[in-house]
Amino acid sequence: MKVLLIGYGAMNKITARLLTEAGHEVVGVIARTNDSDYPEYDNIDDAGADVAIDFSNPELLLPLIEKDFKTPVVIATTGEKDTIVETLKSRSQNVPVFFSANMSYGVHVLNNLLQSALEQLDDFDLELIEAHHNRKVDAPSGTLVKLLDTALEHRDSSHAVYDRSDVYQARDKEEIGVSAIRGGTIVGEHTALFAGLDEVIEIRHRAQSKEIFANGAIKAAEVLQKKDNGFYDYNNLFKGE
Amino acid sequence: MKVLLIGYGAMNKITARLLTEAGHEVVGVIARTNDSDYPEYDNIDDAGADVAIDFSNPELLLPLIEKDFKTPVVIATTGEKDTIVETLKSRSQNVPVFFSANMSYGVHVLNNLLQSALEQLDDFDLELIEAHHNRKVDAPSGTLVKLLDTALEHRDSSHAVYDRSDVYQARDKEEIGVSAIRGGTIVGEHTALFAGLDEVIEIRHRAQSKEIFANGAIKAAEVLQKKDNGFYDYNNLFKGE
Amino acid sequence: MKVLLIGYGAMNKITARLLTEAGHEVVGVIARTNDSDYPEYDNIDDAGADVAIDFSNPELLLPLIEKDFKTPVVIATTGEKDTIVETLKSRSQNVPVFFSANMSYGVHVLNNLLQSALEQLDDFDLELIEAHHNRKVDAPSGTLVKLLDTALEHRDSSHAVYDRSDVYQARDKEEIGVSAIRGGTIVGEHTALFAGLDEVIEIRHRAQSKEIFANGAIKAAEVLQKKDNGFYDYNNLFKGE
Amino acid sequence: MKVLLIGYGAMNKITARLLTEAGHEVVGVIARTNDSDYPEYDNIDDAGADVAIDFSNPELLLPLIEKDFKTPVVIATTGEKDTIVETLKSRSQNVPVFFSANMSYGVHVLNNLLQSALEQLDDFDLELIEAHHNRKVDAPSGTLVKLLDTALEHRDSSHAVYDRSDVYQARDKEEIGVSAIRGGTIVGEHTALFAGLDEVIEIRHRAQSKEIFANGAIKAAEVLQKKDNGFYDYNNLFKGE
Repeated sequence: MKVLLIGYGAMNKITARLLTEAGHEVVGVIARTNDSDYPEYDNIDDAGADVAIDFSNPELLLPLIEKDFKTPVVIATTGEKDTIVETLKSRSQNVPVFFSANMSYGVHVLNNLLQSALEQLDDFDLELIEAHHNRKVDAPSGTLVKLLDTALEHRDSSHAVYDRSDVYQARDKEEIGVSAIRGGTIVGEHTALFAGLDEVIEIRHRAQSKEIFANGAIKAAEVLQKKDNGFYDYNNLFKGE
Repeated sequence: MKVLLIGYGAMNKITARLLTEAGHEVVGVIARTNDSDYPEYDNIDDAGADVAIDFSNPELLLPLIEKDFKTPVVIATTGEKDTIVETLKSRSQNVPVFFSANMSYGVHVLNNLLQSALEQLDDFDLELIEAHHNRKVDAPSGTLVKLLDTALEHRDSSHAVYDRSDVYQARDKEEIGVSAIRGGTIVGEHTALFAGLDEVIEIRHRAQSKEIFANGAIKAAEVLQKKDNGFYDYNNLFKGE
Repeated sequence: MKVLLIGYGAMNKITARLLTEAGHEVVGVIARTNDSDYPEYDNIDDAGADVAIDFSNPELLLPLIEKDFKTPVVIATTGEKDTIVETLKSRSQNVPVFFSANMSYGVHVLNNLLQSALEQLDDFDLELIEAHHNRKVDAPSGTLVKLLDTALEHRDSSHAVYDRSDVYQARDKEEIGVSAIRGGTIVGEHTALFAGLDEVIEIRHRAQSKEIFANGAIKAAEVLQKKDNGFYDYNNLFKGE
Repeated sequence: MKVLLIGYGAMNKITARLLTEAGHEVVGVIARTNDSDYPEYDNIDDAGADVAIDFSNPELLLPLIEKDFKTPVVIATTGEKDTIVETLKSRSQNVPVFFSANMSYGVHVLNNLLQSALEQLDDFDLELIEAHHNRKVDAPSGTLVKLLDTALEHRDSSHAVYDRSDVYQARDKEEIGVSAIRGGTIVGEHTALFAGLDEVIEIRHRAQSKEIFANGAIKAAEVLQKKDNGFYDYNNLFKGE
């Protein structure tokens, strides 16, 4: 697979290494400061790539996707999500496009398993717990917020509870407790805990490095390049595989 | 809900207590030695119950179900499974019947989540781990064997590996490692661990007491009594709920 | 071992059963409402017991220990701790006395291991997490508060943080995060998590039933009855064993 | 701190990076193939370093330590352990020397906590569990073997059990179950699980990257350079700190 990289920051450097290790070929880079040995291009179609993988930012990405192109693209830029998605959907009439704000395939599966568990464990109390490194400034994590959204879609009268130390009362049935653990260099761990009468079911995802995001993008790219034109995310990319 | 108990051993004593606590009524018992205060009956329909819950044995159960009856029954007897299921299927033309060799609803959900994960995590290595008390004589547990069966249905070229200390080689892709931990009075814990590139997904069920089996039977009974005639297990009981 | 029970509520009913199962003999009960078959007594020495085990309350206990007695006593009453400890210390000149507000031996060991870890893991971030059933009204649990006290003795410039969702900043080195998970019928789980550079050490205690408190009292009673006069707790009871 | 690196393979490349990030200075390398920009030396004292850190092999290391030197050394070479330790002990009369076959400080602490737990949990069943990546050829891991040795020193009539699937009997009190989980790219996880009557205590170490070994060596070097002449390992290095 010949791959063009859009952006060449930390994530795409990892992506380049993993692509090479997996036998794929990096044929070029679109980046404002290209400190790589790969040829530099200005437009998505110029490199003759089978697929492009983006870990960049709206400033770099948006001008590239404002005009039509015919190379399938895997897009992981965060920020200006609505504009990016809308633009990509226009382009996707002529080319297969994949977009996900979280490129970890495992996190996507975690969310699916949570949905499945929610459908089966109505009577169980749900608690969500995440752990990250001590430099993370937001709590809970973006991924936990997404898991919480999934939970609230199934339990629409429920609400999140972030602190129980300030009340003296039993847990309300409608609570979804949210705990954020911080320490050291923990890359990221998310747990959905369902507690019932004398039994507990836990679903947990643990990331060991940021490589999972590069790996998710590569996996998506491998599938995407054989797809029909259209807009894909993790919910429909693997359908029919 | 008026409930007849078939058998009155440890499990049905717990069931009686939980039924009462939940506002249901135990209207009688069929047992060879009835040390309860509940009236004793000889046939399933005699007690005027809405549903019967069985935790007994083939000797007590089989004569009761050889003839037709019209009270919905939840059956948890283990042993002579083929005969019991065949007999129950005949009866189920005229009455709703529920059968499960493992009445824990949570274990059923664990198995479902494992199936869902298997469908999504083709590339991940799977390991199964269970922990039980130090008096358990079989290893791995019956529940782990069931989880392993589920895994092998999706990965039909795989095989279980119970001991790695006697070989000096890397893990084969087709291995499913099985670990059995024993100690103290651990009631039962089962984990499916999926390990990929720098990410791990774990699905775990932990039982805290044998009450989960009684609770599962009660939950099944509550749903079963409103069902059409037929043979139900955990795979179809909640459909349409 | 002949045992007198002080109080006959839920905890001492469990204690009576476990004593009998272990081959000990319950020789009597001191309780305001004695619904047992055991003989009832008014004073600690009247039953001719080798040791007394108390799970009661200050109203019942304090009058009993205001006068001297010669039967070794294991005391688990909570409430009016200062008065009880002071009174017991006076009595302990003439009789061996054991007192602990948490009779779980495992929780005591957890606290010891936490101390040991604190001495060795200066550079690691510490987080404390507990999980309990959904009817518990206080958060964090009393045991977690004790673990936190232990931590703050070693890290006297640190402070507990109960909620991180309301700030947008990296973890301060002096934080000790405290998370309280609530759900189902979880008996009690406490974790100390030390997170450093790319490694994590966790120490966890998990209770499966309230029997651990009865079991701790019995274990303490077995040792105490052979001890010299004096005031004992988990920190000195097993010294010299 | 000016540091000389002995060996320049994967581990010392990580060490060099972490030293630089921590404000230390790498002043040279002793290596057969030096692909670094650091000056190359032939003898330990030639670089004028405050301390030398070794991640190499007996072929490179032994000739260097056969003669006297005055630079403190942190040695992590595995293989020919007896010869290396004997030689280092001779040298240590004139210089501070640190040796450990496992440079992870956290694993050392895990072993200490295990010892402490063994002293307090006589009645508890012990099980040891480890998890590593799917390319690891030995099972159980070297670290688990060390933990097992620690356990057997306290329980000298116990023995390891690696497979329970081939017997049909309850756990013997003298068993120490050993489980080895393999999958994906798991860096390394070790757990000591103590199971008693209705309570479990777990002590777990989880490594997220190989940096923990470099980090352990750096931490040891920082302390060692201020020490008196002598032979040090993790058991005595931090005494008096």
